[in-house]
Amino acid sequence: MNGAQALIRTLVDAGVDVCFANPGTSEMHFVAALDDVPEMRGVLTLFEGVATGAADGWARMTGRPAATLLHLGPGMGNGLANLHNARRGRTPMVNVVGDHGRSHKRLDAPLESDIDAVAGTVSGWVRRSLAPEDVAADAADAVAAAARGQIATLVLPADVSWSEGAAVADPPPPWTPPGPTEARLGEVASVLQSGEPTVVLLGGDVLASEDGQLVASAIAGATGARLLAETFPARMVRGAGLPDIGKLPYPPEVAIKALAGTRHVVLAGALSPVHFFAYPGVPGTPVPEDCTVHVLSEPGEDGVAALRALGEMAAPGATPQPLEASRPELPSGRLTPRGVSAVVGALLPERAIVVDEAITSGVGIVELTSGAPRHDWLSLTGGAIGDGLPMAVGAAVACPDRPVLVLQADGSAMYTLQALWTMAREQLDVTVLLYDNASYAILQGELSRVGAAGGGERAGQLLDLGGPALDFVALATGMGVPATRAETAEELAEQLGTALREPGPHLVQAVLRPAG
Amino acid sequence: MNGAQALIRTLVDAGVDVCFANPGTSEMHFVAALDDVPEMRGVLTLFEGVATGAADGWARMTGRPAATLLHLGPGMGNGLANLHNARRGRTPMVNVVGDHGRSHKRLDAPLESDIDAVAGTVSGWVRRSLAPEDVAADAADAVAAAARGQIATLVLPADVSWSEGAAVADPPPPWTPPGPTEARLGEVASVLQSGEPTVVLLGGDVLASEDGQLVASAIAGATGARLLAETFPARMVRGAGLPDIGKLPYPPEVAIKALAGTRHVVLAGALSPVHFFAYPGVPGTPVPEDCTVHVLSEPGEDGVAALRALGEMAAPGATPQPLEASRPELPSGRLTPRGVSAVVGALLPERAIVVDEAITSGVGIVELTSGAPRHDWLSLTGGAIGDGLPMAVGAAVACPDRPVLVLQADGSAMYTLQALWTMAREQLDVTVLLYDNASYAILQGELSRVGAAGGGERAGQLLDLGGPALDFVALATGMGVPATRAETAEELAEQLGTALREPGPHLVQAVLRPAG
Repeated sequence: MNGAQALIRTLVDAGVDVCFANPGTSEMHFVAALDDVPEMRGVLTLFEGVATGAADGWARMTGRPAATLLHLGPGMGNGLANLHNARRGRTPMVNVVGDHGRSHKRLDAPLESDIDAVAGTVSGWVRRSLAPEDVAADAADAVAAAARGQIATLVLPADVSWSEGAAVADPPPPWTPPGPTEARLGEVASVLQSGEPTVVLLGGDVLASEDGQLVASAIAGATGARLLAETFPARMVRGAGLPDIGKLPYPPEVAIKALAGTRHVVLAGALSPVHFFAYPGVPGTPVPEDCTVHVLSEPGEDGVAALRALGEMAAPGATPQPLEASRPELPSGRLTPRGVSAVVGALLPERAIVVDEAITSGVGIVELTSGAPRHDWLSLTGGAIGDGLPMAVGAAVACPDRPVLVLQADGSAMYTLQALWTMAREQLDVTVLLYDNASYAILQGELSRVGAAGGGERAGQLLDLGGPALDFVALATGMGVPATRAETAEELAEQLGTALREPGPHLVQAVLRPAG
Repeated sequence: MNGAQALIRTLVDAGVDVCFANPGTSEMHFVAALDDVPEMRGVLTLFEGVATGAADGWARMTGRPAATLLHLGPGMGNGLANLHNARRGRTPMVNVVGDHGRSHKRLDAPLESDIDAVAGTVSGWVRRSLAPEDVAADAADAVAAAARGQIATLVLPADVSWSEGAAVADPPPPWTPPGPTEARLGEVASVLQSGEPTVVLLGGDVLASEDGQLVASAIAGATGARLLAETFPARMVRGAGLPDIGKLPYPPEVAIKALAGTRHVVLAGALSPVHFFAYPGVPGTPVPEDCTVHVLSEPGEDGVAALRALGEMAAPGATPQPLEASRPELPSGRLTPRGVSAVVGALLPERAIVVDEAITSGVGIVELTSGAPRHDWLSLTGGAIGDGLPMAVGAAVACPDRPVLVLQADGSAMYTLQALWTMAREQLDVTVLLYDNASYAILQGELSRVGAAGGGERAGQLLDLGGPALDFVALATGMGVPATRAETAEELAEQLGTALREPGPHLVQAVLRPAG
């Protein structure tokens, strides 16, 4: 058994049974070994950023790490932005990065680069397998490290992959996240009993759990605390029957208003909030100066267990406040961002997975979908744009019986558009709702928000996608994804309805242009 | 004057007057300052890999560094593969990477990452500007570092960019590369006079210089040495009137044959050759065991001056052996890779810039274009695929009066296809000849070359781009580039001729499918 065969068999035994791959020469034995371990599903992507984003989406939906197969340092570089998002979302992932054979390292061949340094910027665990007899144990260690909510990167020299003498390793024991401590429970319980204005900020595992949200809702109802969700949750389960939890807004001035007057912020699976960027004259965090931040559970701990224990202590017998089912009416006429959100709210299918990279275009989308049938919502956790389409690939591979809807801004779509091809190749049930506003609209807002004066012509040109206009229908069909264009709310409703009903991938380009 | 204004003015004064940009929030003041320094041309790209590849192509054609504007660590990651290629090609470049404001760094905001570590893997020079009064001097130092043939990365905190108190800095003194040493000249002259089988391997500045090639040819003619070019030159001037210099082949077995029997390899601007990858049972380099490698000039030194001095010493009065003008006849019938090469050789316009990312499809392209009118040839220096289309953007911006022809393999094209949009936006005179063989053909060869057995069905699926077929005509027109599809040699000749004659960008998809 060679290194590649032992590696793949060990991964499969440990529950890592899909690999999003973008291989090159140094990974050819890994590719060949896929025929020896048929339980590992290899999914080809045309760009490494698609592979890493897909692995992120897959893990968010399964709770297990997916593998990626990347080609040396430049391949890892191409995947780095979505690895950043995965790191920020605490997604478990195992990257296998092929490298030169051991004897070739010292020759400084053209593709030589410092893989370990690049990997180290996103990985909680990095190791280079230096012998075929070690590679399977290294793989098991990688899965164990990933299971703690981090990225594990295993650098695999080509000759370690092709050499005989390897053997399968046992899967690692399952990981149990740490539960609540008495000290934290006591501190938070007394905050809740103080009657002072308190926000419980939910994140991570709590938002991914129906039970976590319901318990939090019961506690809030009984104590008068307010619930908020972190701005960009990795996975949030939503819809009728769950509590109505708004998100802490992205724009700093709105986030500051949302927390104004709050004396205590209790973190349940979330980090203490900070603004995405620094702005002249604006404090770095929306937390008021006289507000105290308390930790109930940190990301990576068992926040649901902590909330249950807190509930028994601070709000015994309290009941949650679930939302009733409700959908917006279908709008009509010219398309507006809010109208698009209403169409989504009206049509969102049962058990949908929504991947949200709508950026500025998702106006009203949270409130207009909150009473829809139960669904999951995946957000851009790290702010590195270009994860919408790849995450949809991964989510659809993970959940073939569930419809996936991507809310996709145009500028971000262009970063990893190659994901459409994998959707077509694998016939994934993904509907891409493409918001076409022909601009980096968020940057137009940011230009004025940072006080960058004037908005001169030359500055404006760097934020404008309109010349030439991107024809996403042509781009999608060029990669095998059927696509249509909607210019009115009626057209959008009809096209989106059809796309959601039919199996396989579809793209609907929603044209959002200023009137006139 | 704020930091951004002083930075841009300093860059322009130092000859860096184009910036390939992919900005985000932290770069908004840089963007705004473009209106204050109109001599700096900002070129928008839709993906950072396009920006870095374009800067590479621009610098290869101008000899001066271009700037890129990248958005924090993930933006740098997206540009990393083409930065790797630029590093390997010793391309001068100045990256400006926006980062969080100084007060925001400690808050671990979502986009926080270790930019410096990522930058360090490709940059010969990395600095973080920590005060507005320093930023201009930092920029001048960056240009000075870049001029030595390396990548300089300046990390620019948003508030250093927006704060007042900056002033323009003087441009750095010009860089003069080191000339030849007597010791090396004497050693190489005695090798050439020994009469033993000798190969002079040309690279770097020598291949970019007509004079360098002609002097090398004269020396070779007088001494019986054989000339070879490094496998992937950053820039090679070619065509009728210049000597016929073959390239050291890529496949290890062919490269080994090309150097068999050689007793001396003399390096003139090239590195000592090694194979791209390790292969089971194959030595890492094609240089025979009993062959001695001698350095006349290292990359980054003045190899042309070294050759001139060598010529005066070892071959005084010798004359070069230039090629006569010749073109292949236009082929007919079904398209083959060699037929495509013949069409290119027959039609290549005067003063063309050829960007070569044809990978396996460029069969016979070197010999079939060697007698064409004078042209420049840019290659994939670092092996990180996806630099063809971006480099063409940069070359066309650098040389608006010269036609650019990209020989572009399909698999590689998909890495940075967004470059087409910038070609359309800037109306660059670029013709893309897209080799459509519906596969990662090089990997199919590599799979058997590394001895990865069998080529089972599941392995084969990871090397196949055919399901679904990529429609490059749709993809190009979706980004505003007119495109056609050629299935016969006659169609290709007609379409390529039209595309080369007309201004602005065009794409011609050459369909190369196995007979059947």
